[in-house]
Amino acid sequence: MTETIPPRSGTAFRLARGERLTVIDPQGEQVADLLAFNAADVREVLSAGRTLDYAETIRLTTGHKLYSNRSAVMLEIVADSVGCHDFLLTPCSYATFDHFYPDLPRHRGCFGNLEEALAPFGIDADMIPTAFNCFMHVPVAPDGRLSVLPPISKAGDAIAFVAVMDLIIGLTACSAPASNGGSFKPIQWRIEAAAE
Amino acid sequence: MTETIPPRSGTAFRLARGERLTVIDPQGEQVADLLAFNAADVREVLSAGRTLDYAETIRLTTGHKLYSNRSAVMLEIVADSVGCHDFLLTPCSYATFDHFYPDLPRHRGCFGNLEEALAPFGIDADMIPTAFNCFMHVPVAPDGRLSVLPPISKAGDAIAFVAVMDLIIGLTACSAPASNGGSFKPIQWRIEAAAE
Repeated sequence: MTETIPPRSGTAFRLARGERLTVIDPQGEQVADLLAFNAADVREVLSAGRTLDYAETIRLTTGHKLYSNRSAVMLEIVADSVGCHDFLLTPCSYATFDHFYPDLPRHRGCFGNLEEALAPFGIDADMIPTAFNCFMHVPVAPDGRLSVLPPISKAGDAIAFVAVMDLIIGLTACSAPASNGGSFKPIQWRIEAAAE
Repeated sequence: MTETIPPRSGTAFRLARGERLTVIDPQGEQVADLLAFNAADVREVLSAGRTLDYAETIRLTTGHKLYSNRSAVMLEIVADSVGCHDFLLTPCSYATFDHFYPDLPRHRGCFGNLEEALAPFGIDADMIPTAFNCFMHVPVAPDGRLSVLPPISKAGDAIAFVAVMDLIIGLTACSAPASNGGSFKPIQWRIEAAAE
């Protein structure tokens, strides 16, 4: 069954070892921030620094593994119709809205949405690491400058992961204007049983 | 007074708001991993994701601010004779030695050195985030690939920070062969009083 995350909101759920999680951009140009925590010990969390170190690239796609702060594989990317995601930047928050969009109404952003969704699992705001930002388009210029451009994802594009341990997943439909080409759209996801 | 961190080791110390911390590469081509924690609440930690987001570059140098996971400024870079540092990769550890150097003797690396040095401050291994890796040379290719090259720092090069809050600092002389041009050298540091 495919679930829908409404625009500018988030959710959290369990993903068992071996299950496949597909994250879908149903309308195109929409980012989904993804977090992962070891369900057996939520102090083990997704680590951008470990993952980029082992992958030796910032462009993660099919075949790459996402590592925890304890150097264990949490997720493996098993399908990806886009090939452009970000693992450098943290979820948007009140503070990032104040910084980047001082003239817009404040929004708690993905950070606030994740904080609320993860609270029932014993995970608080200080435990939220850098997210794997599905479909987020953050090119690095030769001089190191980062820019946040509209995603290159089209309607129906998707990225799929297989869980390598039992996980708590946090997932959003991102709330920041620049990340999503200026409009806010839903994100869809579904879980499928482990392949035999 | 200038302190010396012997090769392949680490230390931790307090840095009060307004004080200036200078990290020196006395022989050249040596990396120093730097961590920062709010001394009043060590769950507030240095955040690569927040810092890169606000700085809009991965090449941090004089004038850039290093942010916490709560979007507060922890440190400001006030001098830098090198201009080439890394804020993408996590401290080397037993696991990274197993991954990258399976034929070399295992070493606990900066991660193990930081864990031991920070323990007296109530900080454990799971609380260690991506470090600001002074002098580490990690170019990003146009296709996203990362490489770890010898630092471009020469003997006596230095980077200096001013603390914007009372901090616990973790600092190492890095233990990974590739990061340091194949040899292990000391790192020096000193603290100076706040400028009036």
